[in-house]
Amino acid sequence: MIVRKYTDVKDEDVKMEEASGVKKRILISEIDGAPNFIMRRFTIEPGGYTPYHTHSWEHEVYVLSGNGQVRFAEKSYELGAGTVVLVLPDEEHNFVNIGSEPLDFLCTIPR
Amino acid sequence: MIVRKYTDVKDEDVKMEEASGVKKRILISEIDGAPNFIMRRFTIEPGGYTPYHTHSWEHEVYVLSGNGQVRFAEKSYELGAGTVVLVLPDEEHNFVNIGSEPLDFLCTIPR
Repeated sequence: MIVRKYTDVKDEDVKMEEASGVKKRILISEIDGAPNFIMRRFTIEPGGYTPYHTHSWEHEVYVLSGNGQVRFAEKSYELGAGTVVLVLPDEEHNFVNIGSEPLDFLCTIPR
Repeated sequence: MIVRKYTDVKDEDVKMEEASGVKKRILISEIDGAPNFIMRRFTIEPGGYTPYHTHSWEHEVYVLSGNGQVRFAEKSYELGAGTVVLVLPDEEHNFVNIGSEPLDFLCTIPR
């Protein structure tokens, strides 16, 4: 087993092009022996955003705190504490902090 | 995509033998088209607990609020908001609420 606080994991800047004000902590990964999926915790600063992009794997997201939007090709949706998002493979999307506090969320991906 | 609040999902009593005071919401599952893993949100009432059991799949857990313990064969660990737990396949474990408020956590499993 692994038991840790999220604050025990060092955060790192997300340095992708077209990302702004985004930090990531990899909470559980293959390094811990996780067989199937990887749990990450993101923080987006006010005004920050993740890249508007697409990839072949899904995201399962749970918003912990803050206010934001998730933007898809057709539509955007509001995000707040307790919002759940499934981004399917190949769906274009990004996450944007539209509030005045950090936007914190978990985002699990397949290994 | 799917975007919803966790409160949009009906909670259901966990009726397993040796569970007490446990409710579950299945936030994202294969019904939503999730390819690989299922996100659930549990609430354990004060004094409640999940069964002390084992199974062939892993859990990836993130504690949202409350105070509890996760108990393994060798050792128990304290849980609070922001605690992360990886339960590996075939590890005996249970979750116990030792606080005076509900213990809320996410628990993701493979599909």
